[in-house]
Amino acid sequence: MAFEKVTREENYSEWYNQLVYNADLAEHSAVKGCMVIKPHGYAIWENMQAVLDKMFKDTGHSNAYFPLFVPKSLFEKEEKNAEGFAKECAVVTHYRLKADPNKPGSLMADPDSKLTEELVVRPTSEAIIWNTYKNWIQSYRDLPILINQWANVVRWEMRTRLFLRTAEFLWQEGHTAHATREEALEETTKMLDVYATFAEEFMAIPVIKGVKTENERFAGAVETYCIEGMMQDGKALQMGTSHFLGQNFAKAFDVTFQNKEGKIESVWATSWGVSTRLMGALIMVHSDDEGLVIPPKLAPIHVVLVPIYRKDEERIAVIEKMDEIAASLKAVGLKVKVDDRDTHKPGYKFAEWEQKGIPVRLALGPRDLAQNSIELARRDLKTKEVVSIEGLESRIQDMLDDIQSSLYNKAKQFMESRTYSVNTWEEFVDVLENKQGFAYAHWDGTGETETKIKEMTKATIRCIPLDNTLEAGTCILSGAPSTQRVLFAKSY
Amino acid sequence: MAFEKVTREENYSEWYNQLVYNADLAEHSAVKGCMVIKPHGYAIWENMQAVLDKMFKDTGHSNAYFPLFVPKSLFEKEEKNAEGFAKECAVVTHYRLKADPNKPGSLMADPDSKLTEELVVRPTSEAIIWNTYKNWIQSYRDLPILINQWANVVRWEMRTRLFLRTAEFLWQEGHTAHATREEALEETTKMLDVYATFAEEFMAIPVIKGVKTENERFAGAVETYCIEGMMQDGKALQMGTSHFLGQNFAKAFDVTFQNKEGKIESVWATSWGVSTRLMGALIMVHSDDEGLVIPPKLAPIHVVLVPIYRKDEERIAVIEKMDEIAASLKAVGLKVKVDDRDTHKPGYKFAEWEQKGIPVRLALGPRDLAQNSIELARRDLKTKEVVSIEGLESRIQDMLDDIQSSLYNKAKQFMESRTYSVNTWEEFVDVLENKQGFAYAHWDGTGETETKIKEMTKATIRCIPLDNTLEAGTCILSGAPSTQRVLFAKSY
Repeated sequence: MAFEKVTREENYSEWYNQLVYNADLAEHSAVKGCMVIKPHGYAIWENMQAVLDKMFKDTGHSNAYFPLFVPKSLFEKEEKNAEGFAKECAVVTHYRLKADPNKPGSLMADPDSKLTEELVVRPTSEAIIWNTYKNWIQSYRDLPILINQWANVVRWEMRTRLFLRTAEFLWQEGHTAHATREEALEETTKMLDVYATFAEEFMAIPVIKGVKTENERFAGAVETYCIEGMMQDGKALQMGTSHFLGQNFAKAFDVTFQNKEGKIESVWATSWGVSTRLMGALIMVHSDDEGLVIPPKLAPIHVVLVPIYRKDEERIAVIEKMDEIAASLKAVGLKVKVDDRDTHKPGYKFAEWEQKGIPVRLALGPRDLAQNSIELARRDLKTKEVVSIEGLESRIQDMLDDIQSSLYNKAKQFMESRTYSVNTWEEFVDVLENKQGFAYAHWDGTGETETKIKEMTKATIRCIPLDNTLEAGTCILSGAPSTQRVLFAKSY
Repeated sequence: MAFEKVTREENYSEWYNQLVYNADLAEHSAVKGCMVIKPHGYAIWENMQAVLDKMFKDTGHSNAYFPLFVPKSLFEKEEKNAEGFAKECAVVTHYRLKADPNKPGSLMADPDSKLTEELVVRPTSEAIIWNTYKNWIQSYRDLPILINQWANVVRWEMRTRLFLRTAEFLWQEGHTAHATREEALEETTKMLDVYATFAEEFMAIPVIKGVKTENERFAGAVETYCIEGMMQDGKALQMGTSHFLGQNFAKAFDVTFQNKEGKIESVWATSWGVSTRLMGALIMVHSDDEGLVIPPKLAPIHVVLVPIYRKDEERIAVIEKMDEIAASLKAVGLKVKVDDRDTHKPGYKFAEWEQKGIPVRLALGPRDLAQNSIELARRDLKTKEVVSIEGLESRIQDMLDDIQSSLYNKAKQFMESRTYSVNTWEEFVDVLENKQGFAYAHWDGTGETETKIKEMTKATIRCIPLDNTLEAGTCILSGAPSTQRVLFAKSY
């Protein structure tokens, strides 16, 4: 906090950077492009993981683990996938260091340890996994395979932003194998729904479900489904993708099975993933100029208790009562922290927990003790009230429920208020430049027009919404006929 | 199962390999030295993680995440650590692939993307973490830092064995920073105790706690504490280590703090870890010639239910009853699987679940239905009995408790029966060669003698046990005076 705090209004991008730092979520590391996820940030990610992991298991998936490295010859096999990721690959070429004869005290890659085949650090794991599935699948009896992996991946990035774009990031990647096209398609949309439910019910972020255009599709996919959320600057953030891979990987890796009729067929595939990018969405949708705001369902701490005292005997009495209150809150399942540090003043603690986004704060002083009351502060609305200690548990539980739904409603209203249906190029540019929001517009369906629009406005087609109604119209740029509106926005 | 099953007696090492394969735990991948952890194996590892993670949090630790890569210049800083790991390092030298002009369809590391500084794939994270802590620590108020990380690490290996020795493995690594030597030492032994408790109470494996000799110490540590278990072939397996790092890393990375008196001091450090190697221990201690035996506290499934039927109407009635029983078992907190696949016969299912080590199996047929009875089979003892369905929940709960303690007791008796106190070289060699066990012997305290013994017998000093009683004696090899016995064994 050595620098002047910037507001969202003044500089949204700098506000984000400061918030990530001040809320102790993450920081840049000594490794170009790689971040350190600090305990407070990691605790929120762990909560996301726990919820998602349960949702995956409830839908029949198991976790497994596949190698970090992909031999170059496997990486190359699915051509489009290889082409799509080749420019971002960290490459391992040696397996040993030795003392550098020219620089005492220094090490160098030992030339004698040069690998005969380079290893790519996985940017995604389709190649290594489908090469493995090949040995697991012979008959329809071996299908479906429903596997998820929690892992780190590396996609080299020159311009990085904490959580949003880093060379190494953490994610989960589901990889499933099916006997039929229908079953694989059903899996693809099922997992998209899981992501949408997670975003809306746990992250309190409304999302638009849709399908990507060819230009924006995952390298190697037949169709890419996605969920898109709106940040407070009106930009879109892709929050999760679910890919229908058709038989592309099965064919590249020669994965076939004998169907019930004894015929040999290629296997159908899906893959789907969300990453630590979700942390970026969480921050950008709900937080304010004071700092982070965490939806209660993902908060590592629901309630922080700060004691107020001057003299030592006050301290003892106040903390004793606080511990008692903390115990009663824990007893109803709340995650509670008593901040009894004697190295910091209450005001400092208030500011720190506010920046860190803890949903509810309690403060208790000697006067409260006498009156059996306590100060209850709500992070999202920044309201404070003095309430009775009697019945505090249910009052806080209700408040947390209210914060969760109120964050969602606020985000939903915001997204709706910034979403426009536009019919002319002028209206389109006005939404992107001045109104800063989402524009539903007609598009002629060609990659050329899409690319031109991107060059002219920096906006891309975020998706063709799944619930789209068909209507006749003309492309905002080319004027060619169109049958439906698609979602345009600037994006992260 | 295309090959002849080997028994432990016939070939322990091959028995292990077959078991890992047959129980569907893991397999070799296309990447030399790296394994695929399959869903059944990963589910056991997840259970280990969940228990350990809770133990770490209960002792005040938080999780965080640090980069996969370590810049060479940081890796070099703590000299002993660098020296110790240099020979096993995967080195990233390029960050992009491009089309190989000489091989159409092939990619190559783009020479223009050569890194100015090589990146080491972390073999352990002290360097990157202490370089980060440097910025987190100014004052005694910033201490202690109690952080754990769940991660993958890479140590290049030429001769690999699934779980026991692989180039990439999964682990947790705790890294703590303290104001005083005493506090750091206390942390080191506290975490050793956490590991010992986990091994004994959850893995049902008795362990010996001790401290390593200088030869066997972690590169960069002042002292390495460890827990050692005995496998069924009488060899030792190091199951976890906790290192007191002194001020070595603080000095290498210049991490200092201002103490309460205003004086600048170097920070004290510990690190501690367990890995997927624990899976190897679990397998080797409890399993038998029929396959895996999982201690109930770590079993992904406690009870598997197999329906027996011939006709379709039998099937419906049997499965209906089974689902009802499964529900009643789940209601008391048991993890239950109804194996209602109609693609496999009961005999096949029995063998499969036996190989996979599920503690309890239930089988229900039409005759049982009529008599309100069920067949209850216990994996570890291979006993079977027909029991009433009445009171099945508590009967199974008791059985699982009994399996857990009986596995521990059996392993403990085995270890005790194979542990010898020896006074002469002949006795020593006899224990290692013929009796195949642990030998407590006097040693003169020199690295030379230790190395000689290793060359002559392949046995190493596993540890100097923490509960050692001092007694006068003479070294089994050199005859020089000694004050205590140390634990020798062959090891994995």
